[in-house]
This record gives sequence, structure tokens and C-alpha cells, in this order.
Amino acid sequence: MLPYMKHTGYVNTQQVLVNTAPPYVALRANERLASVMTVATSDCSGGAGIEADLKTFTAHKCYGLTCMAALTAQTPQGVYSIHEVPREHFELALKSNLRDMQVDAIKTGMLTKNAVGVLLEVMSGLKAEERPPIVVDPVLVASSGASLVRDESVIQDIKRLAPLATLITPNVHEASQLLGCTEQELQLDNVENMISKAQELQIVTQCPNVLLKGGHAPWTDVRGKRYVTDVLYTKNGNCVVYLSDCCDSKNTHGTGCTLASAIASNLAHGENLEHAVYGAIQYVHNAIEIGCSVSKAHIKENGPINHVYGIKTPLREMVKDLCYSAHALAIDSQDNLPEDDAPKGNSTRSSSTSSLVSQIRDSGHFFEYLVSDPRVKPHWESYTKHDFVKRVADGTLEREKFKFFLEQDYAYLDNYAQVHCIAASKAPTTSDFDKSVQIVTSIKTEMERHREKMMKHFRIPDMKHFDEIKMGSALKNYARFFDDVAKNGSWIHLCAALSPCLMGYGHALDNFKDAITVDKDDIYYSWCQDYLAPWYRDAMQEGLVLLDRVCQMTDDWDSLCEIYATVCKLETAFWDAALQYEASR
Amino acid sequence: MLPYMKHTGYVNTQQVLVNTAPPYVALRANERLASVMTVATSDCSGGAGIEADLKTFTAHKCYGLTCMAALTAQTPQGVYSIHEVPREHFELALKSNLRDMQVDAIKTGMLTKNAVGVLLEVMSGLKAEERPPIVVDPVLVASSGASLVRDESVIQDIKRLAPLATLITPNVHEASQLLGCTEQELQLDNVENMISKAQELQIVTQCPNVLLKGGHAPWTDVRGKRYVTDVLYTKNGNCVVYLSDCCDSKNTHGTGCTLASAIASNLAHGENLEHAVYGAIQYVHNAIEIGCSVSKAHIKENGPINHVYGIKTPLREMVKDLCYSAHALAIDSQDNLPEDDAPKGNSTRSSSTSSLVSQIRDSGHFFEYLVSDPRVKPHWESYTKHDFVKRVADGTLEREKFKFFLEQDYAYLDNYAQVHCIAASKAPTTSDFDKSVQIVTSIKTEMERHREKMMKHFRIPDMKHFDEIKMGSALKNYARFFDDVAKNGSWIHLCAALSPCLMGYGHALDNFKDAITVDKDDIYYSWCQDYLAPWYRDAMQEGLVLLDRVCQMTDDWDSLCEIYATVCKLETAFWDAALQYEASR
Repeated sequence: MLPYMKHTGYVNTQQVLVNTAPPYVALRANERLASVMTVATSDCSGGAGIEADLKTFTAHKCYGLTCMAALTAQTPQGVYSIHEVPREHFELALKSNLRDMQVDAIKTGMLTKNAVGVLLEVMSGLKAEERPPIVVDPVLVASSGASLVRDESVIQDIKRLAPLATLITPNVHEASQLLGCTEQELQLDNVENMISKAQELQIVTQCPNVLLKGGHAPWTDVRGKRYVTDVLYTKNGNCVVYLSDCCDSKNTHGTGCTLASAIASNLAHGENLEHAVYGAIQYVHNAIEIGCSVSKAHIKENGPINHVYGIKTPLREMVKDLCYSAHALAIDSQDNLPEDDAPKGNSTRSSSTSSLVSQIRDSGHFFEYLVSDPRVKPHWESYTKHDFVKRVADGTLEREKFKFFLEQDYAYLDNYAQVHCIAASKAPTTSDFDKSVQIVTSIKTEMERHREKMMKHFRIPDMKHFDEIKMGSALKNYARFFDDVAKNGSWIHLCAALSPCLMGYGHALDNFKDAITVDKDDIYYSWCQDYLAPWYRDAMQEGLVLLDRVCQMTDDWDSLCEIYATVCKLETAFWDAALQYEASR
Repeated sequence: MLPYMKHTGYVNTQQVLVNTAPPYVALRANERLASVMTVATSDCSGGAGIEADLKTFTAHKCYGLTCMAALTAQTPQGVYSIHEVPREHFELALKSNLRDMQVDAIKTGMLTKNAVGVLLEVMSGLKAEERPPIVVDPVLVASSGASLVRDESVIQDIKRLAPLATLITPNVHEASQLLGCTEQELQLDNVENMISKAQELQIVTQCPNVLLKGGHAPWTDVRGKRYVTDVLYTKNGNCVVYLSDCCDSKNTHGTGCTLASAIASNLAHGENLEHAVYGAIQYVHNAIEIGCSVSKAHIKENGPINHVYGIKTPLREMVKDLCYSAHALAIDSQDNLPEDDAPKGNSTRSSSTSSLVSQIRDSGHFFEYLVSDPRVKPHWESYTKHDFVKRVADGTLEREKFKFFLEQDYAYLDNYAQVHCIAASKAPTTSDFDKSVQIVTSIKTEMERHREKMMKHFRIPDMKHFDEIKMGSALKNYARFFDDVAKNGSWIHLCAALSPCLMGYGHALDNFKDAITVDKDDIYYSWCQDYLAPWYRDAMQEGLVLLDRVCQMTDDWDSLCEIYATVCKLETAFWDAALQYEASR
């Protein structure tokens, strides 16, 4: 198999064939990558500046170019040194990039007087149709608080640049500077004011499109939840208001750079502005929320965001590749390579509880372990003691809510069957595979029964009704989680994700079986009895056995607890949604 | 659903909820990213230097930091300007990164005299156990041919740095300079010499580990195939020889930077050196082979490699997300967003052939279209007219080859069933879903028949035999392609990938049915008859109908042709492997 190797005099020599690219990916040979140039300043610590820009371009599958106006020696702690790049060098970098390379979009960040001058000169020299879209992040101060460019005329410079740009992305502070007022005077306390200020910024900067960012001033809704509002005001007078949850993170270093770079990346891919901004807001939001820890312990805030949350580690992917040939090298690293990219929680098991682990492994009861884990328990309780079940049992649930639930449940089963298909494809043994395929078949049978029952009880005239069920948001969230685990998780994770539905319905009916007072002819009664029936109890028993097998196959019980807790929450929300349902009139 | 919005005076206002992070991914909150610092020079055109380094770190899910010794204004065309960063600034960047940030590995590239001085001072000031692993790419000239640092003492500098490093990665040219000889004198024309030169480099540089790269001087094997040899010589006197196919690409700008950065990334992830080097070689190999087109037309060579080949575009992924809420914004961009990340070939259909398209769509025959496509036809022919089938039909095939084939085919069916499970999970309609599940069940039945036949004819004593079948490399390649399409392709692509097996066996037997002269009691005879049997013909007929449906669902017939061609090649190789099989004695 390794034809090139003659016997060498070196005893400890191993020979390894390096695999080629994944075949399907390789079909896209010589692909024209969308390319984006950042014209900005370097942040050596990597959280902001051209470093954050290049990370963002790369994470967006774009080709990144740079043109640096200055370098900073900075960390989240502060700015220690600024070095301006000579005008001539900046000019040569800009011009040679534009002459020799494809540039589909430009993003500008922190600039110097010289850089703005050169950029204006070069850009105005291009015809409008030759000029790539420019996204201007009007940086005045770094998020570390230091003003990199002390020259006050920076505001004037931005105003000169903006008319050539496609979009300008001021935050509250920058907006106030550009409008020549204080932040208080902006009165950005409601959507109307934000829209009106965005419109004013359009007039003042003469930039055709303005994204006014509300991230520095989140609002609170009636339920006490904090949220962020960003307003895009476009050249046609259209307006898009983006609402996102507020992340309580102190690590927001480089968010401005990243947002503008993500917008530029999406534009370079040919997306329209409204979509480009949507994608960028979600990307930054995710990067903040997922976060990362890369600064030393003495740095308490202003840490970087996680630009790479969506990326997989190439070597881990290679090792999973069927044709990977370097296993022999893995003598001591085999242990270092985790089975997959599973989320690793901080292990909460101390040495005293590790005897519990071996006890459970010996004698079973992993299900009991899971539902009594402090992360899972509250959600398991609210799920299996849900008022929805009580109100079915005693017959007080409104019919239309039950009908809504059954429809959603029907759509859920469709999805549940799909996920079992994926579980089948990941099954470690033939018998696991066969079981999954059996389950798929029995879900299909259950769906048929579901349809018959509903057609009878709710006088549904034809099958078309079932194809037209719209997924509610609770179901969408649930299906989304399944999809995510199916794509990114292992068979073990899928087993954990698929378990709460099976086990929970059974336990919920156990909890309320004495409360079943509804008439025996009622569909509510038969619904309750289904989950108390012997065939369902058998399925639950198999579910217990499966969990006991699963816990033998991994040490990372924390991930399984996290998944179990998440699905219990999703189940609770599913019943909540049924209780809250109001038929539209 | 959008509670925050009061009526505003602005008519054209849309409100959009921004989704949160994919739930499973978000479980890894505040993850400790592996972090790597590049100490090198900037290449504004993005192909090499700190730009290539940051792209590589990001593509490896690492957090990147920089410490720049100099900036260059360069493109694949040449170097236009070099600007050295002042010593004080470099020193502050280096020290503040090391003080405030986690640095799990360092990669050095093109350096200046000052930079080497500071780096040596700072690194020797650290205790060995505090010093992160350093990968030294001993850059002497850029791949554009220009020497960035004219001072001849650069070789001495590298020799001063190397003892503090973990690995040094010279190419042939750099090796000759470090050893003080010409490239010819190195005589790198066989593995033994490469190992011995790597050992000499270890002595000369005092770097504990040496990777001697052969990429600039590929060798040719007995079959005329060019391949690249890289040799890792480690501090324990162990040696790993990495063999990879040679890519005939002129776009190799930045490969040295990228390789060293990928190694540093893998080391930062905690991989051992042998594995880290393997992963890096494959990554660079893929990045060259897949390639990209980002320079303007007048640039003919030395273009950049594709650092982002494995990355998915976030916005495209978001749009597929069940909870994505910005569809309403997509008024004119809905068309811009392709259905998925399918490989897009350059459409070969001119307007004259588009009438053929509508003709096929109206009347069927998409299968005939596929197998007569010039990219598919030669591979379809060599597959369906394969000597293997002829030799089964006339009974001249050696029994042990047939047994090997049946075993591989058995293992193939297992995989084939798995891929049908994934096709089921992606099926666009319930009826497609049901069909896939049916197929899975019938494959399972076929596998059973397979086992019975083999146990009878080859006197296999027990079932364990079938679980112990080792996949041969032809099967591995085939399964790998399936896996890849299952993960990255759509249902349509999977249909195309699964079709050649079904259709080809039938057509192959059609081609050789007059040659079936083997005895009727022979297993060869019944094997032939299976694919001529009515039930098989029915399945083929269903396969034709499916392809006719598939061609209605996409305009991107090129991708389907590429996939069809690839699978025909894999089928041919599968039968080749059986013919070439020699039982080991």
C-alpha cells in the first residue's frame, strides 16, 4: 500500500499517505471566492482591528485583504503603543490590491488623516460602477476607551468618506458625534426616535444607507427582558428594525469591527443590504453570546468575542475521514483526540461521585441519574407535572387548544421520524440500526393513527389538512435543536435528545393518572390511556436500557445532562404553547 | 409575535427578530479557544504573511494574535514596498500579548533583525515550561521571488532562534542555505537522503524537531504519478515520511506560512507533533488543490490558496435555520440565495441546449442525458462494460476474487442503507420519505440473502465473519464520497449519488447477458440473474422516474453530472479492486 518506501537504514521510520480533499468539496475547484479588503488599524491582541476583520471574512468564507493605516500594541487592558504607517506605504498597498486583486467589498475602520486622504483620492478616481461597496465603521474610540486618533478632524474625515460608501454603521456614541449633540440629546429611547435619527444621519453624512446600532443602549420590554434594537435606514426611505436579545457579556471587544466586516462579507457574497445586515447582526450576537476565554485571569472585561464559533477543527474532521491513514501515528495522541466536537461542560463530578459513576455503569439507572441532575431536575419536573396534562386528564382543556396541540404533535412526529433516520445512519451496531428503522416505521404507524383520530374527532375532511399544518414557534425551536444535534452531535447525543419525549409522556401520565376524570368516550381519555398502555410501557423499558448502554459509551455525562435539560425545556414550552394558543378569528 | 413595535409614522418599516445561536453550538459557552500568535510580516494582498496566518488559525478554530515585524505592499505580482515596524512598537506588542493574553503556540515567519533580537530576548527570559511551542518557518525569500530582508545575517538569526523552537520547517531552498550548500548538493532524490538531511538540519539548527519539506521538488513514481515527500525528524530520532499527491497548481503563494500556521494551530489544540504535521500537510494540500480565483486576469501565477475551503457561509446556514425570521426581507434577494452550498459548475448549457432541458423536463429521459454527458460517458462505459462482469458471466473469475467482491459488496450495502437513511431524513415529501425507508428495509433483506448465499457457497461457519469484514480502499473511497454528499449535499445530490449503483448493475448485465455461459448451478449464474430479474427491473424503472423528478427540481444539472461521473469512477474502481485482489497467504 505504501509503494514508495524502500528499506531505509533508519529504524524508527513510519510512512504515511496524506489524504486528498473531501471529494464533494473538491468539486468546487478554483472557486471564485468573494473577497473583502479591510482598510483599518491592527490590534495585535486579535480582538478588534484588521485581525477581527480577517477572522470575520474567513468565518464568512471570504478572501481577506488588508490595507493598514496604523498598528496598535493593545490588549483588552489598554492601548500601549500606536504606530502610524507611512502614507506612501499605505498608498502602495491600497493601489496594488485594487490593481492586481479582485476586491468585492471594502470595510473601513479606524483610519488616520493620511489614510482617509489617500482612500478618498483613490476612490473618487474610480467610476461609481467600478467602486466596490464600502462599509464605513465610523470608529472614534476603541472599546478599551482610548482614542487612537487624537485629531478631532476625524469626524470631518468620516463625513468626507461617507458619500462614497454604501453603508455607515454608527453606534450611539458615534451617532451623537456625527450629529453634533450629546448622547442624551439623541433620546434613543424608542423606535420612532431611532428611525428619525437614522434619517438625520443619512442627511448629515450623505451616506445612502445608515445602520444605527443600539447595542450600547439596550431597552427592556414589558416582561423585563432586555433587548437590542438596530435600525437600518436605506436610500429608498425603507427602514428595517432588527430586534435581538441582549447578551449579558462583558466580552464585547471588537463588536463594531466585526459587524461592519460581516456586512461587507455578506455584500461581497452578493446578498442584498437588508439580508447582509441581518446575517451580520446574528453572527455578532452569536459570537458575543457563545463567547470565548482567551485573555489571562487578570483581564476581567472587554475580552474578545468568538469569531470561530461555527468552524470545525480540520484535523478532527480528517481523523473521522474513512480514508484517514495516520492512525498509526496516534500512539499517544489517540487519547487527545476527542471522539467528536461534542460540547464539553466543566466536569462537575468530583472523585467522591465517580464511585456513583461506576455504580450506575454496573447496575443501570442512568435515566434516574439524568433526571435528578440539578441542571435537569427543575425542567424535568415542570415538564412531567405540566398543567396541560392535568387539564386533559380532567377534561377542562379547551378543545381548540387540544386540536392545536395534536396538529403540532403530528408535525413533531414527522420531524421525530426524520431524526431517528439520522440516528439510524449513526448507529454503532447493526442491532441499533435495525431498532432505529423499526422506530421510524412505528412512528409512521402512529402518525396514521393520529390522522384517523383527528379526522374523526375534529371532522377534518381530507388528508391535505395534515400537509398544511404550520409549525408553531415552540415546535420550530424544538425541531431546530434536533436538527442541530443530528448535524453536530454523535449517536450518543442523539439518544439523549430523543429520550425525554418517550420517557416524559409516560411519567407525566403516571403523575396524573389519578386525576383522569374525563369521560371514557372522550378523545382526551384515549390520549391519556395511550401513554399508560402496555406497549408504551415496553417502549419506555427499552428506552431505559438504551440510556444504560449510552452511559457506558462516554465519560462526558455533562453534555448528556445539558442535552436532557434542554429537551425538557423544549417539551415544557411545547405544552405551554398549546395552553397559550388562541384560535385566530 | 413582534411585541416591541408600536405603530410608527414611517410607512415602509419592517421589523425582524434576530435569531439566537444554534442551540447545540451555544452549549459551549465561553469556550477556551486554542490561541496562536504569529510573529511575522504582513502581506496586504492576503495570500501570505500574517494574513495567511490569521486565516489559517481561524480555519482551525483557533484564536489568532499578531506581532508584526514589517509590512509589505505586495501582490502575487511582486513586492512594491516594505515598511519595518519600529523595534519599540514590536516589543510592546509582543510583551503585552504575552502578559495579557493566553498564547498556546507561536508561529514565526519573515522577521527583521530587530524582531529576532526582541523575540530572542523575550523568549530566553521565559522558563522552558512557560514558553509556548514555537514553530519557525525559516523564510528567506517570498514566493514572489523577492527577498524581503536583504541582510544576509538572517540565516544566523534563524539559527539563534531555532534552539528555542519546537519545530523548524525548511523547504529545499531554505535547507540548502541553512546547511551552507547548494540545492543540488543536497541530493534530495530519495527518502534516505531526505532523512539524513533532516538529521543534519537538527544538528546545525539545534532545533529539536525538523520538518524538511519536499513540495518544491516532487518525485515521480513508477506509474508516472508525481508525489510530494515531507520528512519529519524528531528529537527522539523518530522519523515520519509523509507522502501526498502533487497538485499541478500555479497558485501556491503562501503555502509555507500556511503550513507552519496550521502546525502551530494543531499544537495549540494539544495534538502531538506527528499528528499536527499530518493535519497541516493535508490542509495545505487541500487548500492548493481546491484553489481559488481572487486575483485579476493579468495575474497568471503565484495566486493564493484557498484557506476557507471547509467553511460554510453563515448567512446561508441561517436562512436554512427553522427559526429564521427574515424571509420577508428577501424580496429581491430570495433569488440570490442559492438553495444550498452545492458545488456550482460553470454551466455548459448554451441557449441552444436549453430547449433540450425543457424537452427532457417534459418527456423524461434524464438518465439518458446523464450517461451521455461527456463528463459522465467514459466512466459510465468503463463501469458498465467492466471485465469483472464478463468474467463472472463466463465463469473465468477466480473464486477468491469473487468472494472478496461479495464481502466488500456486503459492507457496501451496510453503508448504502445508512446513506438511504440520510436521504430519508432529507426527503422533500412524505412519499419520498416512505420510499427511502422501504429501500432501507429491502437492503436489509438483501443483506440477509447475501449472507445466506455466502455461508452456503463459501462454507462460512458463523455470522461473526460478516461483522469482521475489513473495508478495502476502493470501498473506503466510495463510502467517503457518500458520506460527504450526505453531509454537504441536498436530497437531489444524494439521489444522483445513489443512482449509478442501481442503474449500472442492471446495464452491465444487459451488456453481458449473451456472455453468460457459466453453469446454472453456479453462484456466478444466480448473481448474474439477480440483476436481470423482474424485481430488479422494476427497481430500475423506479430509479428512472426518480431521476426525471430530480431534474425538475434543480437547474444545476452540472453538479448532478459531476456527481454521477464521480460515482461511476468509484464503481469502476470497486470492480478493479476485486480483479486485482490477491488473497494474502
